[in-house]
Amino acid sequence: MSAKTKVAILGASGYTGAELVRILALHPHVEMTVLTADRRAGKPFADVFPHLAGIRLPDLVAIDQVDWAGVDFVFCALPHGTTQEVVAGLPAHVKCCDLSADFRLKDVAAYAEYYGHEHLAPELQKEVVYGLTEVYREQIKAARVVANPGCYPTSAQLPLMPLIAKGLIAADGIIVDAKSGVTGAGRAPKEGTLFSEVTEGIHPYGIATHRHAPEIEQGLSEAAGRPVLVNFTPHLMPMARGILSTIYVQCAEGVTAADLRAALADRYAGEPFVRVLPEGQVPATRHVRGSNFVLMNAFDDRLPGRAILTCVEDNLVKGASGQAVQNMNVMLGFEETTALMQQPMFP
Amino acid sequence: MSAKTKVAILGASGYTGAELVRILALHPHVEMTVLTADRRAGKPFADVFPHLAGIRLPDLVAIDQVDWAGVDFVFCALPHGTTQEVVAGLPAHVKCCDLSADFRLKDVAAYAEYYGHEHLAPELQKEVVYGLTEVYREQIKAARVVANPGCYPTSAQLPLMPLIAKGLIAADGIIVDAKSGVTGAGRAPKEGTLFSEVTEGIHPYGIATHRHAPEIEQGLSEAAGRPVLVNFTPHLMPMARGILSTIYVQCAEGVTAADLRAALADRYAGEPFVRVLPEGQVPATRHVRGSNFVLMNAFDDRLPGRAILTCVEDNLVKGASGQAVQNMNVMLGFEETTALMQQPMFP
Amino acid sequence: MSAKTKVAILGASGYTGAELVRILALHPHVEMTVLTADRRAGKPFADVFPHLAGIRLPDLVAIDQVDWAGVDFVFCALPHGTTQEVVAGLPAHVKCCDLSADFRLKDVAAYAEYYGHEHLAPELQKEVVYGLTEVYREQIKAARVVANPGCYPTSAQLPLMPLIAKGLIAADGIIVDAKSGVTGAGRAPKEGTLFSEVTEGIHPYGIATHRHAPEIEQGLSEAAGRPVLVNFTPHLMPMARGILSTIYVQCAEGVTAADLRAALADRYAGEPFVRVLPEGQVPATRHVRGSNFVLMNAFDDRLPGRAILTCVEDNLVKGASGQAVQNMNVMLGFEETTALMQQPMFP
Amino acid sequence: MSAKTKVAILGASGYTGAELVRILALHPHVEMTVLTADRRAGKPFADVFPHLAGIRLPDLVAIDQVDWAGVDFVFCALPHGTTQEVVAGLPAHVKCCDLSADFRLKDVAAYAEYYGHEHLAPELQKEVVYGLTEVYREQIKAARVVANPGCYPTSAQLPLMPLIAKGLIAADGIIVDAKSGVTGAGRAPKEGTLFSEVTEGIHPYGIATHRHAPEIEQGLSEAAGRPVLVNFTPHLMPMARGILSTIYVQCAEGVTAADLRAALADRYAGEPFVRVLPEGQVPATRHVRGSNFVLMNAFDDRLPGRAILTCVEDNLVKGASGQAVQNMNVMLGFEETTALMQQPMFP
Repeated sequence: MSAKTKVAILGASGYTGAELVRILALHPHVEMTVLTADRRAGKPFADVFPHLAGIRLPDLVAIDQVDWAGVDFVFCALPHGTTQEVVAGLPAHVKCCDLSADFRLKDVAAYAEYYGHEHLAPELQKEVVYGLTEVYREQIKAARVVANPGCYPTSAQLPLMPLIAKGLIAADGIIVDAKSGVTGAGRAPKEGTLFSEVTEGIHPYGIATHRHAPEIEQGLSEAAGRPVLVNFTPHLMPMARGILSTIYVQCAEGVTAADLRAALADRYAGEPFVRVLPEGQVPATRHVRGSNFVLMNAFDDRLPGRAILTCVEDNLVKGASGQAVQNMNVMLGFEETTALMQQPMFP
Repeated sequence: MSAKTKVAILGASGYTGAELVRILALHPHVEMTVLTADRRAGKPFADVFPHLAGIRLPDLVAIDQVDWAGVDFVFCALPHGTTQEVVAGLPAHVKCCDLSADFRLKDVAAYAEYYGHEHLAPELQKEVVYGLTEVYREQIKAARVVANPGCYPTSAQLPLMPLIAKGLIAADGIIVDAKSGVTGAGRAPKEGTLFSEVTEGIHPYGIATHRHAPEIEQGLSEAAGRPVLVNFTPHLMPMARGILSTIYVQCAEGVTAADLRAALADRYAGEPFVRVLPEGQVPATRHVRGSNFVLMNAFDDRLPGRAILTCVEDNLVKGASGQAVQNMNVMLGFEETTALMQQPMFP
Repeated sequence: MSAKTKVAILGASGYTGAELVRILALHPHVEMTVLTADRRAGKPFADVFPHLAGIRLPDLVAIDQVDWAGVDFVFCALPHGTTQEVVAGLPAHVKCCDLSADFRLKDVAAYAEYYGHEHLAPELQKEVVYGLTEVYREQIKAARVVANPGCYPTSAQLPLMPLIAKGLIAADGIIVDAKSGVTGAGRAPKEGTLFSEVTEGIHPYGIATHRHAPEIEQGLSEAAGRPVLVNFTPHLMPMARGILSTIYVQCAEGVTAADLRAALADRYAGEPFVRVLPEGQVPATRHVRGSNFVLMNAFDDRLPGRAILTCVEDNLVKGASGQAVQNMNVMLGFEETTALMQQPMFP
Repeated sequence: MSAKTKVAILGASGYTGAELVRILALHPHVEMTVLTADRRAGKPFADVFPHLAGIRLPDLVAIDQVDWAGVDFVFCALPHGTTQEVVAGLPAHVKCCDLSADFRLKDVAAYAEYYGHEHLAPELQKEVVYGLTEVYREQIKAARVVANPGCYPTSAQLPLMPLIAKGLIAADGIIVDAKSGVTGAGRAPKEGTLFSEVTEGIHPYGIATHRHAPEIEQGLSEAAGRPVLVNFTPHLMPMARGILSTIYVQCAEGVTAADLRAALADRYAGEPFVRVLPEGQVPATRHVRGSNFVLMNAFDDRLPGRAILTCVEDNLVKGASGQAVQNMNVMLGFEETTALMQQPMFP
């Protein structure tokens, strides 16, 4: 009898926790044996997320009640800050995909600058692999701890990194104008994410200061082979899920959008979750809703020598829990698409 | 080698067509071999619904191009009116689940009154089974043609029929105040379903005249053993998917909401898609979005001797394409839940 | 030179406070001299509501800093509970329209039951006038303190009270199925009113227990001349503003919807803010958005002898701040429509 | 006795027509005497826009039924193409503000290129004034025909033109990433603007080819004193009203966002409808909804030497009908803010 992998979800009461449960409910090789939510410990998971009441699940527990002996794999969806100590304290037999921002920046000094405190597990940081699956698949296979990428960085790095690496676009002066759904702000009640404050409107936020900017720059710098800066301007808009990144780039001499599209199509040929659209087709966030797919395309600009890249994802799936399951599949040797072939839900 | 069932979807360019494709993409025992859309014949299905471009599918064809020899099962999602002749003309070896309203009313005179023309296949009507799966499962097993229920009638009949049949509530004077998402109005462009006309508002429509009223009454009359009328007042509101029916009933002498809840829980025990919620828990449409689940509950009224039933479903899934696949599974002897255990998507 | 009336808004940092400012900004006879918000004292009003930065306004102060000598009229938009003592403590020269629920119920025992504590100003309660302007205009003219009606009660009482009073409908067994926008829940952050929890869905709440039920019953009982109970079932739906009440009633012998419509048209002829629509026209919340208008109509039911009333309002205007200004106009002898003729905003 | 100006609205059945009526209903110096809508001729205006049923208005007529002798001023809100002949045919005593795109481009060859046919009134084009009120006020005062600017160009030109003119930013390489509400697409039913196709999503459209690009370039070229190109990338998002332009610019040597903000504040000091926000405050479309206000600000970029400008407006008000009334006020010598001081409606 082949035992199932025993999975714990730490911080199961947030939106990414719910998405992990939704996705893993269809996974034939894993069993969710531990769900933690400190303030809700002792309650059924369905008290927190009634829409998932149909799934047989253990009750919520506090994190210090977990018996790690019965856990093979951990998804850590805790708020940043507490995460570093929790992950550093996991027993050696437990593999982990961390969905927080705590292990994404390789440079612990940059972490301290953007997150306001010293990194609490700098030694562990050195062995953590950044979980942009399509880019770091080989390292992820061997990793014990994977830092799942941020939602915005996923949508920016996937189209940009191959084009920079090939020298088809300038690594400098890239502008990422991103539009996000509200779940990206989490489930903690705040005035700014109330329905009445968000519906029927849009505004930018975190201009030039958002914490995902250095994360995007880390990937682009690696692709460029030198440090690069990026403009990253996120916007909050009235949809629950989805991110669209509209990216403005300078092409290398003689390069057109058709070249960029061809290079991306070539790079992602065979990738199950990344689709480069045919010429002229515009990616829309609603075409990936609820799925792990990423759609992208390239367009010529009116400005000579420049191009526009567009990339969409579901911020809770490929931008969070879906990519986390994808990484778990890679880390544990399962078929990479397992539990992830649910199709987008439109309308 | 076990051949897959060859399925045709007639009228694949509407929302119910897209949902059939989304659901069947995960069905291990069927193969979609024919997709029709007369005005789009020759085009890839992904031209009509780009979000499903990741599924391998045949191009769209016109209905008169279909070679029925290669078809085992038909989902008919054509507009009402043309459907009767198409279904009547299917070869005898083809089973069919019809999603239109054309075969739902057993009384062809009532059909003529509400749909404005004589029934075109009155003989076939006699053998068609009404596809409210939880109620007519045994007949559906043996049926060649099933009339898939309307979205509103599903959400009204499931809670009401057992309570009427058991004499727990009065069959007369029932009031069904229903709230529906906009996909119920279809994909054909109309001023009334434009985003700017629907967002941030609500209004009733079809008051006392909606075509789903006689369909609801058909089920309630059967449960009551005599003809009954019902108030049915639908409302259009700004969401793409979902129906909530808030139902006001007179209890039999001494009966309380707790009795109604217990009776419903008893009736639907073991049903995979119907959940009667615990006391006090309120069904919300967003808790069934994208899934084939139905949630219901009963509440005591301030008015003595009366109660309030609430029932939610996704109008495109349990209210249309999901129930259609459920019926196909029953008709063809597959496990009833096959391809239908995708969990609700929230938020 | 005729000095302007000096107006104070207590609790100006909530949505009803913002609406008072928006409306009064166009009022030629009043000047907003005091705006209180205890936790924001010392800040500009535009810090709280940037959309009103174009209006010249005093900075926010704490309520105990107010010099009442410089105030002629008070709008009290404080949370219920604190309101009774504040209003009871106002100097005698100050008139007041209170937007909280604290003075709406004439029966202080009912207040205690529904609001969980003894009434703190029972003597004052006796002289307070309930501010449903179209019904109590004459008493409002002479009142020093007016209790502005709740949003739901306004939309239920306006169509029902005249029909009950005339004996055209039964006072018993009335069912009010109401649908509200999210601003009705206020601006304090709560999980249940986050965008991602509300968008694309609907659910009932407070079934049979909502505090507006006794307030509605108070008006209907007065119209009936005896105590009556009512079913009141509110629903939360994804729009910022608006209330639709769909009301199910039993007609008196021989009475039809046409009779109800005629009686309502007769009752509200000459009323500037209440419009009874022509036969067949359906009120929609979006047709009153941002305005003080109320639209209503009556429809025959499929159930013999019964009818359906529908009534829409903007919950923040006629359901709160607009009716409050209307009451102030009446109390101070201004033209009743002053500052209230802004037309509905659609789309 | 001072007679009111007699105003005709041609094409009153679209959203801009409704907005003209909503605004003009509060205008003390004008009277709406003619409303045309060819396909609805003979019907009351309230059949088309029930939310404005409270305003006394003439019935709709066909345009060829208009007696121009009784008209002093025309708002032309007809679809482009028919407009040129209609405006060219107006009697000499009638002034006109045209809301279509037909007279916005001074270069009739550019018009032909972007709109697909020869300009039909090239002589008239020479005397038409472009109605960006804050920029061309003096010429508008003397104009007989004003071409009201497009919604996107208004939001791009107002922040950019003064900064280019002063040499504070480079005129080349400007990127305008714009996000628009759905009313911008008009009221004619199309699949792409159905509620279910737009809700909960975003996508770009008309990338590099949108007709507003040459209109924006016309203004920027004038400011620069030489021809310039611009990147203009509009996005369709789920809100009825509002445009946000996020604009990426290269600063002149040593210039910072603070300098840009100061220059804009200086340029628009005293302008009643343009507000430059304080440092750090982010314009949001919902803060101008329903009003004629424009909010803008400037932010430093992470990319050295670059800045980000943001500008919001209500596309139906300052982006269409509000600016049209503003222009009428200027053309006819009324106080410029007449009927335009309705405050933004939030939430």
